[in-house]
Amino acid sequence: MYLHVQRLINEIEADEPDPAAANALQEGLGGQFGEMRTMMQYLFQSINFRGPKGKPYRDLLQGIGTEEISHVELIGTTIARLLDGSPRYNGKPTDPLDTPGAGGDTPLRLALDQSNIHHYLVAAQGALPVDAAGNPWSGSYVYNSGNLVLDLLYNLMLESTGRLQKCRIYEMTDNRTARSTIAYLIVRDQAHENAYARALETLGVDWGKVLPIPKTNAERFPEVKKLLDVGLQSKQYSFDLTAASEAGRIFQGMSPSKDGTQLDATEQAPAGVASTIAEERFEEFSPGLDPDLLALIQATADLEMDAVQPLYGPLPAG
Amino acid sequence: MYLHVQRLINEIEADEPDPAAANALQEGLGGQFGEMRTMMQYLFQSINFRGPKGKPYRDLLQGIGTEEISHVELIGTTIARLLDGSPRYNGKPTDPLDTPGAGGDTPLRLALDQSNIHHYLVAAQGALPVDAAGNPWSGSYVYNSGNLVLDLLYNLMLESTGRLQKCRIYEMTDNRTARSTIAYLIVRDQAHENAYARALETLGVDWGKVLPIPKTNAERFPEVKKLLDVGLQSKQYSFDLTAASEAGRIFQGMSPSKDGTQLDATEQAPAGVASTIAEERFEEFSPGLDPDLLALIQATADLEMDAVQPLYGPLPAG
Amino acid sequence: MYLHVQRLINEIEADEPDPAAANALQEGLGGQFGEMRTMMQYLFQSINFRGPKGKPYRDLLQGIGTEEISHVELIGTTIARLLDGSPRYNGKPTDPLDTPGAGGDTPLRLALDQSNIHHYLVAAQGALPVDAAGNPWSGSYVYNSGNLVLDLLYNLMLESTGRLQKCRIYEMTDNRTARSTIAYLIVRDQAHENAYARALETLGVDWGKVLPIPKTNAERFPEVKKLLDVGLQSKQYSFDLTAASEAGRIFQGMSPSKDGTQLDATEQAPAGVASTIAEERFEEFSPGLDPDLLALIQATADLEMDAVQPLYGPLPAG
Amino acid sequence: MYLHVQRLINEIEADEPDPAAANALQEGLGGQFGEMRTMMQYLFQSINFRGPKGKPYRDLLQGIGTEEISHVELIGTTIARLLDGSPRYNGKPTDPLDTPGAGGDTPLRLALDQSNIHHYLVAAQGALPVDAAGNPWSGSYVYNSGNLVLDLLYNLMLESTGRLQKCRIYEMTDNRTARSTIAYLIVRDQAHENAYARALETLGVDWGKVLPIPKTNAERFPEVKKLLDVGLQSKQYSFDLTAASEAGRIFQGMSPSKDGTQLDATEQAPAGVASTIAEERFEEFSPGLDPDLLALIQATADLEMDAVQPLYGPLPAG
Amino acid sequence: MYLHVQRLINEIEADEPDPAAANALQEGLGGQFGEMRTMMQYLFQSINFRGPKGKPYRDLLQGIGTEEISHVELIGTTIARLLDGSPRYNGKPTDPLDTPGAGGDTPLRLALDQSNIHHYLVAAQGALPVDAAGNPWSGSYVYNSGNLVLDLLYNLMLESTGRLQKCRIYEMTDNRTARSTIAYLIVRDQAHENAYARALETLGVDWGKVLPIPKTNAERFPEVKKLLDVGLQSKQYSFDLTAASEAGRIFQGMSPSKDGTQLDATEQAPAGVASTIAEERFEEFSPGLDPDLLALIQATADLEMDAVQPLYGPLPAG
Amino acid sequence: MYLHVQRLINEIEADEPDPAAANALQEGLGGQFGEMRTMMQYLFQSINFRGPKGKPYRDLLQGIGTEEISHVELIGTTIARLLDGSPRYNGKPTDPLDTPGAGGDTPLRLALDQSNIHHYLVAAQGALPVDAAGNPWSGSYVYNSGNLVLDLLYNLMLESTGRLQKCRIYEMTDNRTARSTIAYLIVRDQAHENAYARALETLGVDWGKVLPIPKTNAERFPEVKKLLDVGLQSKQYSFDLTAASEAGRIFQGMSPSKDGTQLDATEQAPAGVASTIAEERFEEFSPGLDPDLLALIQATADLEMDAVQPLYGPLPAG
Repeated sequence: MYLHVQRLINEIEADEPDPAAANALQEGLGGQFGEMRTMMQYLFQSINFRGPKGKPYRDLLQGIGTEEISHVELIGTTIARLLDGSPRYNGKPTDPLDTPGAGGDTPLRLALDQSNIHHYLVAAQGALPVDAAGNPWSGSYVYNSGNLVLDLLYNLMLESTGRLQKCRIYEMTDNRTARSTIAYLIVRDQAHENAYARALETLGVDWGKVLPIPKTNAERFPEVKKLLDVGLQSKQYSFDLTAASEAGRIFQGMSPSKDGTQLDATEQAPAGVASTIAEERFEEFSPGLDPDLLALIQATADLEMDAVQPLYGPLPAG
Repeated sequence: MYLHVQRLINEIEADEPDPAAANALQEGLGGQFGEMRTMMQYLFQSINFRGPKGKPYRDLLQGIGTEEISHVELIGTTIARLLDGSPRYNGKPTDPLDTPGAGGDTPLRLALDQSNIHHYLVAAQGALPVDAAGNPWSGSYVYNSGNLVLDLLYNLMLESTGRLQKCRIYEMTDNRTARSTIAYLIVRDQAHENAYARALETLGVDWGKVLPIPKTNAERFPEVKKLLDVGLQSKQYSFDLTAASEAGRIFQGMSPSKDGTQLDATEQAPAGVASTIAEERFEEFSPGLDPDLLALIQATADLEMDAVQPLYGPLPAG
Repeated sequence: MYLHVQRLINEIEADEPDPAAANALQEGLGGQFGEMRTMMQYLFQSINFRGPKGKPYRDLLQGIGTEEISHVELIGTTIARLLDGSPRYNGKPTDPLDTPGAGGDTPLRLALDQSNIHHYLVAAQGALPVDAAGNPWSGSYVYNSGNLVLDLLYNLMLESTGRLQKCRIYEMTDNRTARSTIAYLIVRDQAHENAYARALETLGVDWGKVLPIPKTNAERFPEVKKLLDVGLQSKQYSFDLTAASEAGRIFQGMSPSKDGTQLDATEQAPAGVASTIAEERFEEFSPGLDPDLLALIQATADLEMDAVQPLYGPLPAG
Repeated sequence: MYLHVQRLINEIEADEPDPAAANALQEGLGGQFGEMRTMMQYLFQSINFRGPKGKPYRDLLQGIGTEEISHVELIGTTIARLLDGSPRYNGKPTDPLDTPGAGGDTPLRLALDQSNIHHYLVAAQGALPVDAAGNPWSGSYVYNSGNLVLDLLYNLMLESTGRLQKCRIYEMTDNRTARSTIAYLIVRDQAHENAYARALETLGVDWGKVLPIPKTNAERFPEVKKLLDVGLQSKQYSFDLTAASEAGRIFQGMSPSKDGTQLDATEQAPAGVASTIAEERFEEFSPGLDPDLLALIQATADLEMDAVQPLYGPLPAG
Repeated sequence: MYLHVQRLINEIEADEPDPAAANALQEGLGGQFGEMRTMMQYLFQSINFRGPKGKPYRDLLQGIGTEEISHVELIGTTIARLLDGSPRYNGKPTDPLDTPGAGGDTPLRLALDQSNIHHYLVAAQGALPVDAAGNPWSGSYVYNSGNLVLDLLYNLMLESTGRLQKCRIYEMTDNRTARSTIAYLIVRDQAHENAYARALETLGVDWGKVLPIPKTNAERFPEVKKLLDVGLQSKQYSFDLTAASEAGRIFQGMSPSKDGTQLDATEQAPAGVASTIAEERFEEFSPGLDPDLLALIQATADLEMDAVQPLYGPLPAG
Repeated sequence: MYLHVQRLINEIEADEPDPAAANALQEGLGGQFGEMRTMMQYLFQSINFRGPKGKPYRDLLQGIGTEEISHVELIGTTIARLLDGSPRYNGKPTDPLDTPGAGGDTPLRLALDQSNIHHYLVAAQGALPVDAAGNPWSGSYVYNSGNLVLDLLYNLMLESTGRLQKCRIYEMTDNRTARSTIAYLIVRDQAHENAYARALETLGVDWGKVLPIPKTNAERFPEVKKLLDVGLQSKQYSFDLTAASEAGRIFQGMSPSKDGTQLDATEQAPAGVASTIAEERFEEFSPGLDPDLLALIQATADLEMDAVQPLYGPLPAG
């Protein structure tokens, strides 16, 4: 069972809208090696896992899988921010009910020249479950052979490819909104690669100096270097509310990437940052309320509500 | 950000393996109107939501979306159990390292006659991200127009169609494992239908006597009736760890289905039941360990691990 | 612009339900060489047609394309009839509001063993836009190169392949409902093959004795022979309300199939037969009305309605 | 059974070629919420309809479905006109047999920079059965649950989403060819939304002030306003040749959109305008005739043809 | 550049037709981890290879890729043989022009109950480019990251998964035709797994005892054991006509699977066996010749032909 | 069984990188009418061929199919060359281990504006198995009806459409790298069209003056004219190592295109040109070796290897 907090797993820096960068990031969301895929793959591998003796391995998959849901949330929100307002249309007048297209205006004209016109035509300047070439995400991407060693090997390759593609995206744009998320995900992919490589070490593989695969030397990217300097590539959270996860039996010892760090699984979850709700885009008719509906919405927002009885608590005693 | 507990959201009854029922349930997992779709649709609608004044509506989407992840986990696990051991192969000898196919045996012969041979050939008797006709789940299913009223209307139709299909699946099998999950999801779909119908009521729609759509009179199904009798169709959990959700401003008052119940949003999450790990299936080479690897796995499971520092606690003070 | 009459283009014989035959016929509806494809292909070829001098060729495409819409209607209705009631559930009690699944019954159990479970789970015992292996129809099937000779050559091959597949379907079932439609479409495909072959003859090709392609000698099928005996393979209707079609400039002379008949384009449309509406299927919740809704439906059906002003008349003077 | 007249359902204004606008319009033709989808969805819903008492509802679906075929024809033709001649290649010399690419020319160079290179490479400057992002139309789009209320609800949402997307396309271009068709379809989608909303009113729903969904206030678009001023959003044609349609029992009374108009179902069909055939595009080898073939085509066009015997007449007595 | 010899790479044993086994083998032909995929993946990896210093690695990919084309030919032929004659129809009368369906016969009736009806309806009892669940092969399967280490790692995983699935297919059928090819491909997949594992060893990885992945102990399958006993899993052919391949620099030394064998790359190609042409199937209208066409075919077969000038010779001096 | 020589079937001229041209060529590689399709279609038609008397026809299919593999290799390599270095990034410093992205550089920025971002993000400036609109190649493209006449007719149409599209691509770019391959493939498609047209002539068809279809008069393209002048359109190689092919019984006599040439099947294979390996692209991390790995690669390249025993010889006696 899953629970949610209204926080993003990492902060997204503010910068100008940039629809081209938004589209490149779609590969990291809905691509074959993006976050929707890792999320679904590890979720299925956890559900279908066989062999009670392998619980630490199952828990490792389940913990990383849970993190990937938050990555979907993070990169999806980043894409939405990069698209939001990209038409540079006068979208925030005093009157909240604007007049898009009035008199024959074309506030969405720029959509015709963008990488994926669906960002404007279908998704109201929001993220889509597709890759950077517009292909919808497919269930056929999910790999779950049932054989533990093969699944670990595949996952190692999957995280490595995800990181490779994100390093290429980094080289495509210097938009700070895009890069803050890309850099974070590069380092987390590295952490997951370390996790699967370490799991294979417990089964007898010695990686020599071949890790990390690929050797993108991402420490040359300043935004990445900051995160590596605090060791984020060697940390794995449990994302487990009741301390039942045994992933820490695997994720410990020296990093298989031989960067001199120790693997560390002692944290439950990062603190994250509060999430916010995007502004209206009138030219997209989103959310598209007229005065009558707006009044009803407001009335609902003003209603009293009963207190919720918590089963799982917000903050344990320090 | 998402967290996990090692519990299933509802109990799965034990019964015989039944691969035909398992395949029918795939529609509820990976079909156009299944749980992967609702999960992804509400996740995207939450991420791309516009209009800070509409926070109760966003929180309603986010809460239901979080529940759907647990539904994916539940129905996926149910399918895996229905498939597990369906070859009726002598798979649990004293010696954990069995000899599938030795001497020319065909322990998987039954796979040739099943609805989806991939359950045995690809997924090692586990769940797949496909529908009951074998089509992989597609990102093109996700609907997120950005227009609030349209999204609510679509979601109402989506939950209604999901429930309609599950009622048909109910009529296809009396396997208790299958029915315990189907009945639970029928009632939860009804709760979500009520949630979206209620949200449209706050915008001025009066449904008359047309709800629920469709009128399947599922109380005629005994397993469903038990859940309706305790009012599960009129309850919505927040799944929110820090009590930030405002969904309860919408989900209150008389049920739009006019069954005489009050909508109730005062619980954070159901208690659920502990989850377990499936046994080995040697004929699938899953997880496929030989004595050497088994010893290494055991060594890892015996390792000490450091305590995890909780950020979100397991159990709040009563 | 298109208009409709509430008649089927050919009569469908009554016989027992037969879901396996229904599924085979799906290839003729939603397959790569089925009626949805010919309909869409000729519609696009008509819309995009270039060269005003080639009007007779455009009109030939347009007329056959219009016929194909009626073929979609015919084969779709045939499939629906073959599926209707196939669960042999007691579906027509005195009380129109039945109790499917009551007490744990499984009236749809047979769906688990059928070729395409979606016929019961998704389509309420109705036709689907998919082929006999369950693949959804795809726009990528449509061929329209813009080059007249190539398009004619492709269309000839398309009709020939459609006929080949329907002859194979004929050999798979002796259900009279299925065969009455299959036999009709075999002969109409032959007529269309003749049309495209004749169009290529006007451009200089001499087919020798190679037509028809393929030589299935379908006159050995009794239901087909009856239609050949009245020359249906050598007739092409205009389906044109204002006598503007010039297709008859092409479709005349001896048949290129060298069966000794004359091509004949002097009829506007066949007479067809009145169409009917299928009965309720309670176990599918289709159409799923309870007493309240039923009363409202009846009230609507009893309403007076204003007379419709015809622009195109029902029956010209003999 | 269907018949055709060689007229377009609405006039297409002349303007410059505009391949970017053409591509945006592809969403309205081959997109998930475009005309191919509405056409196919209503065709299947009519074929599979259950419940003889619901004939007025079936006839409503069938009439709108027939209109959608003409919409496919209209928007397809509009796209073809927007593409035609877009290379601005010297394509109409005295000699009808031009020399594309002679001496190494690149008359199609612009294709490399357009939204969908297939418009030039595959479709000879014609329309394609794909959406604005290039995805082929898929049979998986068609929704037909068999449950009447659900199908009506879905159709309402479908028309609303189609209109929303077309309003966004309107804001993307001011090309008059594109806008004349977009404006017409916005208003007809509104009429169909009214039809489905009215059908749900007959079943007891009271929409309050929530309609139309979405509230795009399209009367701010001048081309749309002209059509609203003559009430085109409140009219539904029967497209039925023999006055058998009972759709008028539903489509009457005040518009559910509460714009003060009366719904009106008393016309059979609009008058439309004569359709024409596009010119040759030599650089596409379309239709690609050399002098020999041209002479043969001419000879065919000059042939006498026999008179066609009408079954359904062109013009009823006033 | 590629050349062909009219020989199969391995002998196919004769046995009864078995359409269910044929369908299972489709996974090995057109599945995600089948021979079409390995063939295309290695072909693309060879074409796009970067780094002249890595020629031995490129040559290894190219040699294995060439072998995979012959595997496509082998498994495709095996599937065709398993399907051929499966209707047990009296298909070889004295008169070569039979009368399928005459008098209403249903010689293809069994097609309705088979795993993939397309084997009879579309493919005339031949192989299809689809997997065992009927999904068409997709270009999205091909992995070619451009990073050498990642590509090698992926290929290792790919061969391992292919072998895993083939071991499961082995357990599904004891048909000798199916097993002779399955056993051969299991051993060749093992050889390719050894090749990629060895390539990673040259880059510093030490696999410990983890290879082969997975540990299916396929020596328990008698047909496999025979091939392992002659060391076929440790042999790699160059398939190179001009001795330019340097793959032998990698494929040497002790097998990474630690079975005590030496890797051996000293053979150019296996001898294989002569291939044959399948008989007619009249009920499929395949090849569908009537007496006239048959006479023309015979006349062509009797024609003299000019001698072909060889560039690459059939047999080098011993 | 297939063998390989490390030579390209035709020379690729050097010119500047040109990613837009590269993308247009993708249609010729992975499009519905591209080389992957012809290769796979003829391979399947050869495997599934029925009728031993038709061996010359089978051999014709097999020989052309083998040539198509070399065409895939040729056009794939051409695309890779057109992409290679297109970022104009300083990629060849003295030090082979470059620093892409260091300090926040964006060496891959241009990828955001290209037709298919996957060329940079996924494929490391290499070819992809997709068409020019980014659709992955699909097994559903392959046509193999089993009926000989239909298959020949389809193949004729297929080659004709492939040539039509390549003539359009020719008109889109004057890049010499692109044109050298496009021109070669235009002429080879013409040769294959002649082959299938000739095969239909042997069955009695007289094409009159309708061939070639389409009449693109490609001799107006200078690069094409050079190849026509040496008669390359009337030559068909056997690609058969043991002189077993009987295709020459068909491919002889006057060309059906009536260009006055004689068909000639007396050559086994063209000489081709030596192939090379592409340089590193550091900004793609391809192949991505660091000094340690580079040293290991070099060590492997320096290893001795055993001589390969040839079964099929490199060069027969003159």
